[in-house]
Amino acid sequence: MTTTMLPAVANGGSETRGAKKRAEGVLVRDISFYSPVQESRLGHEPPLPSVFHGSFKLVHGPPSSAAGNAAEIEKLFPCLFGQPSVELIASERVSYYDNQKLKIGVVLSGGQAPGGHNVIAGIFDYLEEHAKGSILYGFRGGPAGIMRNKVVVITAEFLFPYRNQGGFDIICSGRDKIETSEQFRQAEETVKNLDLDGLIVIGGDDSNTNAALLAEYFRSKNLKTHVIGCPKTIDGDLKSSHVPISFGFDTACKIYSEMIGNIMVDARSTGKYYHFVRLMGRAASHITLECALQTHPNVAIIGEEVNAHRQTLRQVTNQIADVICQRAQLGKHYGVVLIPEGLIDFIPEIQHLIAELNEILATGRCDEAGHWKEKLAPPCRALFSSLPHNIQEELLLERDPHGNVQVARIETEKMLISMIETELHARKHEETFTGTFKGQAHFFGYEGRCGMPTNFDATYCYALGFASAALLHTGQTGLIASIGNLTAPSKDWTVGGTALTELMDVERRKGKFKPVIKKAMVELDGAPFKRFASLRDQWAVKDSYLSPGPIQFSGPTANDTNYTLKLELGTLDA
Amino acid sequence: MTTTMLPAVANGGSETRGAKKRAEGVLVRDISFYSPVQESRLGHEPPLPSVFHGSFKLVHGPPSSAAGNAAEIEKLFPCLFGQPSVELIASERVSYYDNQKLKIGVVLSGGQAPGGHNVIAGIFDYLEEHAKGSILYGFRGGPAGIMRNKVVVITAEFLFPYRNQGGFDIICSGRDKIETSEQFRQAEETVKNLDLDGLIVIGGDDSNTNAALLAEYFRSKNLKTHVIGCPKTIDGDLKSSHVPISFGFDTACKIYSEMIGNIMVDARSTGKYYHFVRLMGRAASHITLECALQTHPNVAIIGEEVNAHRQTLRQVTNQIADVICQRAQLGKHYGVVLIPEGLIDFIPEIQHLIAELNEILATGRCDEAGHWKEKLAPPCRALFSSLPHNIQEELLLERDPHGNVQVARIETEKMLISMIETELHARKHEETFTGTFKGQAHFFGYEGRCGMPTNFDATYCYALGFASAALLHTGQTGLIASIGNLTAPSKDWTVGGTALTELMDVERRKGKFKPVIKKAMVELDGAPFKRFASLRDQWAVKDSYLSPGPIQFSGPTANDTNYTLKLELGTLDA
Repeated sequence: MTTTMLPAVANGGSETRGAKKRAEGVLVRDISFYSPVQESRLGHEPPLPSVFHGSFKLVHGPPSSAAGNAAEIEKLFPCLFGQPSVELIASERVSYYDNQKLKIGVVLSGGQAPGGHNVIAGIFDYLEEHAKGSILYGFRGGPAGIMRNKVVVITAEFLFPYRNQGGFDIICSGRDKIETSEQFRQAEETVKNLDLDGLIVIGGDDSNTNAALLAEYFRSKNLKTHVIGCPKTIDGDLKSSHVPISFGFDTACKIYSEMIGNIMVDARSTGKYYHFVRLMGRAASHITLECALQTHPNVAIIGEEVNAHRQTLRQVTNQIADVICQRAQLGKHYGVVLIPEGLIDFIPEIQHLIAELNEILATGRCDEAGHWKEKLAPPCRALFSSLPHNIQEELLLERDPHGNVQVARIETEKMLISMIETELHARKHEETFTGTFKGQAHFFGYEGRCGMPTNFDATYCYALGFASAALLHTGQTGLIASIGNLTAPSKDWTVGGTALTELMDVERRKGKFKPVIKKAMVELDGAPFKRFASLRDQWAVKDSYLSPGPIQFSGPTANDTNYTLKLELGTLDA
Repeated sequence: MTTTMLPAVANGGSETRGAKKRAEGVLVRDISFYSPVQESRLGHEPPLPSVFHGSFKLVHGPPSSAAGNAAEIEKLFPCLFGQPSVELIASERVSYYDNQKLKIGVVLSGGQAPGGHNVIAGIFDYLEEHAKGSILYGFRGGPAGIMRNKVVVITAEFLFPYRNQGGFDIICSGRDKIETSEQFRQAEETVKNLDLDGLIVIGGDDSNTNAALLAEYFRSKNLKTHVIGCPKTIDGDLKSSHVPISFGFDTACKIYSEMIGNIMVDARSTGKYYHFVRLMGRAASHITLECALQTHPNVAIIGEEVNAHRQTLRQVTNQIADVICQRAQLGKHYGVVLIPEGLIDFIPEIQHLIAELNEILATGRCDEAGHWKEKLAPPCRALFSSLPHNIQEELLLERDPHGNVQVARIETEKMLISMIETELHARKHEETFTGTFKGQAHFFGYEGRCGMPTNFDATYCYALGFASAALLHTGQTGLIASIGNLTAPSKDWTVGGTALTELMDVERRKGKFKPVIKKAMVELDGAPFKRFASLRDQWAVKDSYLSPGPIQFSGPTANDTNYTLKLELGTLDA
């Protein structure tokens, strides 16, 4: 362990933060249309980890490596590779120049997630407290804002209306990537132009990979601009041993679970519908798993399990139909089934079918008479024919700019309802099913991305903002802000930064190695899945429905975290 | 004014209610799977109107009439017609025998609405307090439970797990009606069998009409069983001057508005989608109007207005397209549009089309070649052809048992998106639209019907339960429990009963007059609509989005009511 020691100047007086952060000038955004809850959340003050209650220093860990193919990662990141992760600890001797003035830029990248505004608030308040006179720039509209130097100065008056509010609308986000050498040059020009000491990239796996590449590029060019990443995504698939959770996951899962819980009570009360709920999460099924742990559905399909067992679509269908038959024997003709948005991407035979379809569509068109189907390999053809008509259409229609099927647009929940109807019809004929089946389809997506952050996400994001600014203030680059011990009271949270290269592996694309932060999938031997697996048979037949209700911002339940976090951190037994 | 005076016996000691209602025995329902919020709500004690803080007496109003065709209503209700409405007022001389033992049955009828369990809790607690030793029976599965004598005794242990919880699952509900003379005879048998002093029917307009018919029937047979109704429906279309609101509306609208608010923030943040949200409310657009007042969407279609102006589907489409074009000129390519579930039922030309389709389908089939379309009148044929393909299919598919199109199954939001796409495409061609349009469809229905009741609904329902039981205890029949002054603190709420016949009119069906409680539609000269109409042009272009956030059970916003109620009662200016 090595530490960087700089002389202490003054204590950052956290007790005055509350007073300081209320803007004294005219607010930039009109809050006359805020609801009472929005307004009351403006006054919420997220508590800080104790390391930020006073002055602190940096402690370096051992040299880092990579998540895979370390030699290739080293080649791709010659300046940054191997740098240690760091931790902040309370200290009277500090690792920063107090009242040093910094110029920092912040960018929101990718899809919305509850809490983004609080990261920015944390950065701003850190600078006010420890580096008074600093300037915080917000890049508008995501990474494109960096490339085009579309920037706004974030003042107290500009920021205040967004504190503890949902959405990313303070500076908006975007899905552009800084990829080409021309784009790197544009970014370089912008950070030079603004004379930036640091850039904070708030985003998911791709955006944090981009952050690392920018950090490497700026370092290689001897620019003073350092780059720090922040873990954001409601999907929960950006995490590692040092980054226990991405922000937004907690809020989104709680909003979805509120709705699922309501639907469960309705299902049980009404007694005649099976509700199929598709949930966001294209690449990983963390949201579905967390919502299952929060609500106890009769069935929850976890894509990673389907994939690990090489299940066919028919097997998935039958698995659900079996539960319906079991319940019918108990006189129950209702239930709730959760499905991850990315389900069909997890089913190997559908992956093959889509690949063949992409190939055929890339080289020709689908004739009305259907002769094109003859180009499909026989198993693919059989699978395609077995799909409901509207799903066939969805598979043939729009492609994304890369020529791929837009999986998120496929109404998997309706597909399953339709296939289960067919299956149960056959079983009725065979007299193995004597009940009734009426499916109701739901998709919960946009409802959860922009809710007001839970107290957990509000506090976590505020700490991430403080951490990101502190890492820049102490001269760090190429790290992702990492807050640990998250199931303890927030004063006991640990604060540090993890080398972005440590999260990386390479993928071969077009003959070249590309660095990637691998998406964290649901681990079948992880505690959350194990708990689910141990309980699901009981949930299938017994109604163990649990209705979490609306998120509470005050009262005894206001500071609860989520199951995934508690189980992964071992503070709840699987 | 006349009052019935009976000797006072004892004060019902409301201060011990909290202690009493916690069941001492083993709970009938397993609450080990309750979420923390569900569990904390079990302990919530809704405050009572002050009239129930001590003893009270009954005050009779003047003789009542009917909402229309009084002479016909008098013929249909010879025993009950004209009876006065009543009010309860605090008094040491009381209108009931204290500690008289009663046998009362309660039934939940029709769709779920948040708060039903609290009505039952109110009845139970009233009996415990004022008529100790009484028995409360719950009929299972709705009115069918009365006809088949499917009954459960509601004890403290049985009731406790349902206090302040959503759903109707304590005894479940059903949509059967007691209609034929055989069914009335079955009901008679059941109430005789159980020796019921009273029956409380919790339901919407149809169920309360049924309650009145039962009250009349029992009275005509000289049975001792009295019948009291309770106003339930999330749709908000059961109300009158003395019944200011039906329960469940408040909670459902707040749940929908939470989701709409989240989607609005997402729309503004993302900047590229128009979200079309269809909301429950088949016969009336109260939910859409209330949600509009709570959230300020760019467009909200109110069915009653569409109908009053005899708008065509094309006019509705163009109205939305106009707003989209206006916003595009301001550089805004996103927005939120609210649509009532029953929209197409409000459009006269679609009513004609559906009538013609019903006729054709009743007498024949639709040939694949489409020759059947020639049977449609030319305007209907043109309208049908202009509809998107999937909507055409939905109109031709399933009929309800009465041979009618299942309007609720028609995805109006998708229909409008598709028609607006076509319209904007044409406008692009004419260069009157230069923006982009991407629609996202949502339907919010089941998510709102079974949420945990808001504090307002919890308190209102508990008071309705107390009122219903008090009305039976004071010998009343054929009344609907009515609580007034609802925007004041609950201690100042007025409590009484309104003659059900006063809410009634007749409809001619199959040559006979049938009594009906007319659905309360959105009044175009009522305060809620006027407020909406005065603000909507501003909402269309300016983003005045308001995000109500999740329902809070504690804190400063926990006891807010809704706009419709406040505006109708004049405590908020239109």
